[in-house]
Amino acid sequence: MNKEKIRVIVEEMIRNSLQKSKLVPIAASNRHIHLSPEHVERLFGRGYELTKLKDLSQPKQFAAKETVTLIGPKGKIQNVRILGPARGSTQVEVSLFDGYTLGVKPPIRNSGDINGSEPITILGPRGQITIKEGLICAARHIHMHTSDGETFGVHDGDLVQVKVDGVRGVIFSNVLIRVSPKYKLEMHIDLDEANAAGITNGKLGEIIAVESRKQVGGE
Amino acid sequence: MNKEKIRVIVEEMIRNSLQKSKLVPIAASNRHIHLSPEHVERLFGRGYELTKLKDLSQPKQFAAKETVTLIGPKGKIQNVRILGPARGSTQVEVSLFDGYTLGVKPPIRNSGDINGSEPITILGPRGQITIKEGLICAARHIHMHTSDGETFGVHDGDLVQVKVDGVRGVIFSNVLIRVSPKYKLEMHIDLDEANAAGITNGKLGEIIAVESRKQVGGE
Repeated sequence: MNKEKIRVIVEEMIRNSLQKSKLVPIAASNRHIHLSPEHVERLFGRGYELTKLKDLSQPKQFAAKETVTLIGPKGKIQNVRILGPARGSTQVEVSLFDGYTLGVKPPIRNSGDINGSEPITILGPRGQITIKEGLICAARHIHMHTSDGETFGVHDGDLVQVKVDGVRGVIFSNVLIRVSPKYKLEMHIDLDEANAAGITNGKLGEIIAVESRKQVGGE
Repeated sequence: MNKEKIRVIVEEMIRNSLQKSKLVPIAASNRHIHLSPEHVERLFGRGYELTKLKDLSQPKQFAAKETVTLIGPKGKIQNVRILGPARGSTQVEVSLFDGYTLGVKPPIRNSGDINGSEPITILGPRGQITIKEGLICAARHIHMHTSDGETFGVHDGDLVQVKVDGVRGVIFSNVLIRVSPKYKLEMHIDLDEANAAGITNGKLGEIIAVESRKQVGGE
């Protein structure tokens, strides 16, 4: 039995064990940006394509080697990582703390829900753009595979409570469930939330209650 | 009836109403430092005394006009407010985020419990000192007057759960109760915790459970 096979079996065992106890590994997201193909070209030059630095936990998502600078009315933040691949609309995700640094007030939003969110200026090596909306503070959420949803008894769009133990123990409310056959089980929070709960990457949270069900017809 | 009298009566009404529902006003503490009288002199010069900028919510505590710079292995933070009056031991309170900036790992501690905490260098206009311990990240806690403790049914040293509503709603665990006839009802958290829970000053939290009782003999 080769190493790869062992890895797959061990991952499967861990997964099964997590599902039984409704435990979810937690990852803290630092500030980052998703760029539209058009904005990649305006910031990095005609025909430019992002280069992969490393794979992210969610399939096909990657951290790019390229970074940009965010410029707000009160300050700027350098070395903001671009996540690929390029998307339909440019979206910038920062913490509320970053918002103070920049002098902007990012609304708490689910990824993709950028309508009426905050403007921000983005500086790249070959150009600078100002987007009228797209700056948000990402709402806490859990990615899970369709099979995890079935095991946990939750659906895409549900809101749950997640408990984290420790000296800075907290119970997070309003944690959005996102289910897809493309997702891998992981809860995403920002650095403010990670610090507040004393969380380092890989720490486990436990889904302890469903707060609200998305209206999708009889369960 | 003059304005001052009205203010006192309104404050009393709010207080009574808060006690009934176990609601506690929350204040976010930014990074700050308490200095020993000796360290005030070493940073600001012989015979120097701190000058009051404004009173704090807790009686006799004040924010001083003076600030210092914190210097860690990886970075420094300027304009760190001194809180007065001078204390027995110097204590520096920062957030975990500040810890990353400085390149140090402050332990989560109750105020005054600095034994074996982190070292830090402090720069003032007339001198620089390095303390061997005293850098902490303050554990979340609630100051309350003796009468609040009686109304809420909690004692000094108890740990409680506090619920905060909103889009970033959380339930904070391990919130230390501190009771004294010198205290005024207020929960103190740091900026990481305030951001994580979407809290602006004055927002209310609700004590929803007592997690552990301090062993003090029959209740």
